[in-house]
Order: sequence, then C-alpha cells, then structure tokens
Amino acid sequence: MTIFSEQDRIFMKKAISLAEKGRGRTRPNPMVGAVIVRDGKIISTGYHRKAGADHAEVDAIKNCPVPVKGANIYVTLEPCSIQGRTPPCTDALISNGLKRVIIGATDPNPRVNGSGIKKLKSSGIEVASGLFSEEIARQNEIFFKHIGSGLPFVCAKIASSLDGKLAARTSDSKWITSSGSREIVQTLRMEYGCILTGINTVIVDDPTLFPKTDPGGTVEDNLNNFLNGGHPDFYRVVLDTDLRIPLDSSLLKTAHSISTIIFAANACRNKAGSTEKIQKLKSSKAALEFMDGNRLDLEKVLKILYGKYGIISVMLEAGPAILTSFLIKGLIDKFVIFIAPKIIGGDSPYNMFGKLENDFIGDSSRLEFYSFERTGSDIMITAYPDMKNNKQTGK
Amino acid sequence: MTIFSEQDRIFMKKAISLAEKGRGRTRPNPMVGAVIVRDGKIISTGYHRKAGADHAEVDAIKNCPVPVKGANIYVTLEPCSIQGRTPPCTDALISNGLKRVIIGATDPNPRVNGSGIKKLKSSGIEVASGLFSEEIARQNEIFFKHIGSGLPFVCAKIASSLDGKLAARTSDSKWITSSGSREIVQTLRMEYGCILTGINTVIVDDPTLFPKTDPGGTVEDNLNNFLNGGHPDFYRVVLDTDLRIPLDSSLLKTAHSISTIIFAANACRNKAGSTEKIQKLKSSKAALEFMDGNRLDLEKVLKILYGKYGIISVMLEAGPAILTSFLIKGLIDKFVIFIAPKIIGGDSPYNMFGKLENDFIGDSSRLEFYSFERTGSDIMITAYPDMKNNKQTGK
Repeated sequence: MTIFSEQDRIFMKKAISLAEKGRGRTRPNPMVGAVIVRDGKIISTGYHRKAGADHAEVDAIKNCPVPVKGANIYVTLEPCSIQGRTPPCTDALISNGLKRVIIGATDPNPRVNGSGIKKLKSSGIEVASGLFSEEIARQNEIFFKHIGSGLPFVCAKIASSLDGKLAARTSDSKWITSSGSREIVQTLRMEYGCILTGINTVIVDDPTLFPKTDPGGTVEDNLNNFLNGGHPDFYRVVLDTDLRIPLDSSLLKTAHSISTIIFAANACRNKAGSTEKIQKLKSSKAALEFMDGNRLDLEKVLKILYGKYGIISVMLEAGPAILTSFLIKGLIDKFVIFIAPKIIGGDSPYNMFGKLENDFIGDSSRLEFYSFERTGSDIMITAYPDMKNNKQTGK
Repeated sequence: MTIFSEQDRIFMKKAISLAEKGRGRTRPNPMVGAVIVRDGKIISTGYHRKAGADHAEVDAIKNCPVPVKGANIYVTLEPCSIQGRTPPCTDALISNGLKRVIIGATDPNPRVNGSGIKKLKSSGIEVASGLFSEEIARQNEIFFKHIGSGLPFVCAKIASSLDGKLAARTSDSKWITSSGSREIVQTLRMEYGCILTGINTVIVDDPTLFPKTDPGGTVEDNLNNFLNGGHPDFYRVVLDTDLRIPLDSSLLKTAHSISTIIFAANACRNKAGSTEKIQKLKSSKAALEFMDGNRLDLEKVLKILYGKYGIISVMLEAGPAILTSFLIKGLIDKFVIFIAPKIIGGDSPYNMFGKLENDFIGDSSRLEFYSFERTGSDIMITAYPDMKNNKQTGK
C-alpha cells in the first residue's frame, strides 16, 4: 500500500472539493477534480463541468498558464483510457509529460477499472492510487452504483413529523417541513434528475415534481425558470398500475416540456375506455410503459429507466406504499429524511412506511445514520441501508 | 444595560462550567459556579456541590489561598440574601470585602429575586448582572421552573424507531435504541431523580426505572451499586388509576429500598379485594396516593409530587397514552428523543403519541429542536415546546 504524505492529502482534498463543483451537472459521468502541482505548489486546477465537456485532467492541463511537463497531477478518479465523447485522458497525461499521477479512487467502470493506471505505468509515469478512495466513492455514489450494477441509484426522500407521520389524519401534508428543508429538496431534485412517485400521490397532492427556483411562486414562473435554465434531461416517473392518472393533473399538463414516464400494467389496456385514455396520454407527450403482470415489478421499472432512458439516479418522492415496496425489495440506496419539530398524533394513519410484518425489533430494517444537519427548523438525516445488520432486504 | 468585557465573558463561562460539575447533585438547589479574580487573574474557584453544602460563592472564598478583600467575583446566579440551610451568601461577600460582583442570572426564587443584588449594592459593592443569563437559565431550567411555578419540571424521554414507532407490532421493544443511548438514559434518570410511568408499561415491560451503573448487568448488582452510591432521594411514580400493579412487579419488589409512589383513583377502593391489595402494597413500602375522579388529574399529580414529596423534576418514561395526556395538558417542559436507525413499519400500532385529533398540519404540536447529537448508532434530539406557535397546548 502506498504511504501518502500530508501534502498529498492536502492536494487530493483540494481536488475533491473541485470535483464537488460539478455536482448535479455531470450526469451520467462522475464528478472529478484535478490539481497540478510542481515543487509543492499548485500550478493549475480543473474539474469536470458537464458531460461532453473536458474531463478534469484535461481541464487542469488546459488551465495551466505554464507547461505541465514534469509536474505531478492529483486526480480524484482514475483517468479514463477509453475513447468516449472526449479522447482518453491517459493520452493527454502521457503526451503532456506529467511525471507522477496520484489517483483517488480507481474507476469502477468495467471498461476502465485499472486499465488507465496500467496504461500510465507502461508509459513510465509514476502512479499512486487509493488516496481518500472511500470519500470519493461516496461523492460519486450515483456513478459507482449505476456503472457497477446497471441500475439507477435510488434515494428515498421523506418528510416526516417527529412522530413519523407523513400527513395529518385528513391527509393534509402541506407543509410538514420548513421552507429551508423544502428548498434543499429542489436542489436534490436537480441533482437526481429523476423523481419517481406513485399514482396516489398524484391524485391526492397533484405535484409537479420538477426543481423550482422559487418554491413559493407559481408553477408557470417556476416552469419558465426551469426550462430557461438549460438543465440536462429531467424526468418524472409515475407508477400507475391501473392507469388512473387524471388527464388534468399538473404532471400531464407539463408533460410537453418536462419528460414524464408512466408505468402501467398491460392488463389495464383491456379496461373500458382505456384506448381513448391512452390516446390522450400520448398526445400529452407522456411516455407510456406497459408491463406484464398485475403489479409493477420495481426492479424491471428501474432497469427500463436505466436501459431505455439512460436514467442513472432516481429520487423517490412517494407515499408509504411505494416507499415500502422499494424498501422490501432492497432497492433503496440512500435515505434523506427531513424530520420536522411537529407532533401529528397516532390517530393519523399516514405512517412513514406500510406493512413490514416485523414481530420483533430485531427484524426491523436497519440503516446507518451517516450525517445530520439543521435545515430550517427541521433536522435532515442522511442514512444508508446497514447491509451488515439488515434482515429486511430481500424479505 | 451593562456592557461586559471580553474578560468578563471568559470568567463567567468558567463559572458556568464549574456550576455544571454539580449537575444532578444539587437538588432542590440550582447549579451555581463562582470565580474570584484579582488583577485579571483567577485566584479561586468554587461551585455548589450538593444541597446543604456551601454555596458557590462561599466555596470559592473558602478555597482561596489568599485574602479575597478587594477582588472581583463572578457568580452564575444571584447570591442569596436569605437564611436557608446555609447563611446568606450576600453576608459572606460583604464581610469578606469583595469589590465587584458580576452576576449571570438573577435568582427567580421569589424570596430572592433581586434582593441579593440590592443588599450588595447598599453595602457599597459594585454589582453587574445579566451576563449569559439565558444560558444560565437553561442550565438551571429545572430550578427556574419549579421555583417559579410550584410544579416539577417535566421531561419526556422517548426512544423511537426512525418511523416513529415505540415497539414492533407484538409490543416487543427491547431494544430499539443502542447501548450508547441507553447509557445516557441512566445519567438522565440520576439527573431528574424521579421517573414517572404508566401502569401499562409496568405490566408489559416490568421495568425497574432506577439509574443503573451497568445496564447489561443484573437488577440485584445494579441495585446494590445504586444504594451504595449515596445518591439523593430517588423516586419512581406509577399512574395506576385502577390499582392494577402486579404485586410481583420489579417496582414493588424494590420499593423497600427505592421510593415508589402509586397514584390511583379513589373509586378503585370499592372494588372487590382492594382492601387486601392496598394492605399488601403498603407492606411493600410503596406510597399510595388516592385521588378523586375516575381519571387521574395530571396537574394535581405533579402538585402532590412537588408539595408533599419535594420532587422538582420528573422524567416521563411512559407509553403513548401517558405521553399524550401530558402533551395535551401542556405539561411537558422538555423532550429528549432518541431516534434509532431502524424501520419497524406502519403495521405496528405503537405510535409515539396517541390520538391528538389534528386534522391539519397547522394544528400539530410544535416543538423547537434545541440540539442533536449522535448517541451510539442513534440520534438524540433535545427539544422544547414552541410556545409561540403551539396551538396544541391546553387543547
């Protein structure tokens, strides 16, 4: 194992924070940062701005006001050795005469995964890797998941009262959390690029589910802002087994300008009036995906989103039924839970999750609290499934 | 308003941290710290160790290796002007020739409340007060509550899953939270000195409710440790309207050595076999309090605990029924909630709170999250009722 110096750590931390600048913009690529150093001093920095733009290494080389020959470069992720939308970064490092390449994490992409390092080494470049690899994998958790599994990374966003309720007993849920939390949700929507919900939420709340610059403003203004923002592809997905979505729902009314995918069961095509409804849905520009069986197979849904639409990350903004189905299938990769300082009461049936059939505490789904912070008057908890202690997954 | 210097702040902070050393030991007195300063240097410190022991000012004077004449003293709470178990502190400050007295908070005790300051000033001592008074009132929240209201300070301790459940659907609740959290509960029990629970908890969980030095060890060992610890009065209180407490419950079996008070409704005395049961309860050394009416009046219960038993603080370790009753009556002064990274599921009926009849989010009970920290694998949230926005209280 390579022993890294204090200087190495400082420069790699810098590269990690540069990578962070690309958050939410690099889809489907990872966030990557790079720092070029000569004689212990940073002479250039770079990061990956968005898919199609220069990779971080090339960005740093281009940004450098002096020749980089003989300098060292710190890059958070293994330089690619393959031709993508841009040429392989390894070539740029070799042709520019970098002396030493310090790599954070190896690229989990099966087409790279060590071959970048190999190529650099065979050209006589000194290579060290594995510095803050865990932090970098976490920073790029979406990329690491989809590239390794062929499934999108799934984050469950939950807004709950302190006593675990998602709504009052009348189903009123506006708003449990504070405006500070709801603003963060807009950022998360942008970052994940795809929001998945269930038909009940659509019927009860009639949400629009796109990222709003002014959550308190009108849908129209927010939609204009969003469309003028030049944002990458953004998707809204509805699980709607029986194709009950109201034709006048906000989702359908905005489907001409924001991609909207509706998953339904094939069976519903035989229902009276369905041909007509399907026709109308199609003219609203919503995409329809019909699946076999009476219930939607969630893993298949995710596979279609990934394979057909290129969706690499999904945020669930759904009710207990959908959340519970994803939880039971072990398909939630991350939880972001906003807990408001409110007590709604046990007479509200709107629990955070549905039926899990846990007779004992030991049977419960285990998470690991990763971090928590204040958001407005609420607490935002970030958690991951506790794979070591989880009996629930796959139940 | 007095303008305090940076030095004043530093010395008062020191006095506050000295006061903290007495936490859980000064009942029914407040925690108080004192620092004596001459020429900008601390020459002595003191704090109130326990009821009956020297007050902080006197402790600091006695600890001082040199005469204190002409020095300044920083004391977190207004020096008392009354004869209690110890002589008035104002006299000690005057007779020892202190020059300037800097006071954190004025004593809310109606028998003091400014009269200490007055007495000092009339003796020609320079007095300034109001430095960190909010922090000090918070530090002594128990004292400030009971001395001002004639009621004990009530803290609701709750251990919940992330989805707001207190138990799995079979009522299994051992253990939702991690050992790290459960250890903190032992400290809190010691600090509050009185644990109140309901008869259902006694019947279902058969708890012992006293502070344990080794929560994983036997009741016997823990009881010996507790009794040998020379702890001040400690009480366990059971709300048991119909006097259903099992004679073989752990509470009754330990009632000979730890004070145990059972509240029941007068009506239950007419039930068959009750004379005999009351006799047995008395011989177990449990104290019995019978109250009029079919339901226990919680405010009356608190008044009896305060007036008859001198109990100034109560921690609720109870189920949803009791928690909800206290909440609705506006009798909870503080919430300490341990949230475990576990999901139990909506099919458990064991909600954190019972029926609150909130139809809208706006009707919910509002809290303010004061602080949160990691305890073992859990999060401990400290919260207070949000008096400004609370529609619930008194509903």
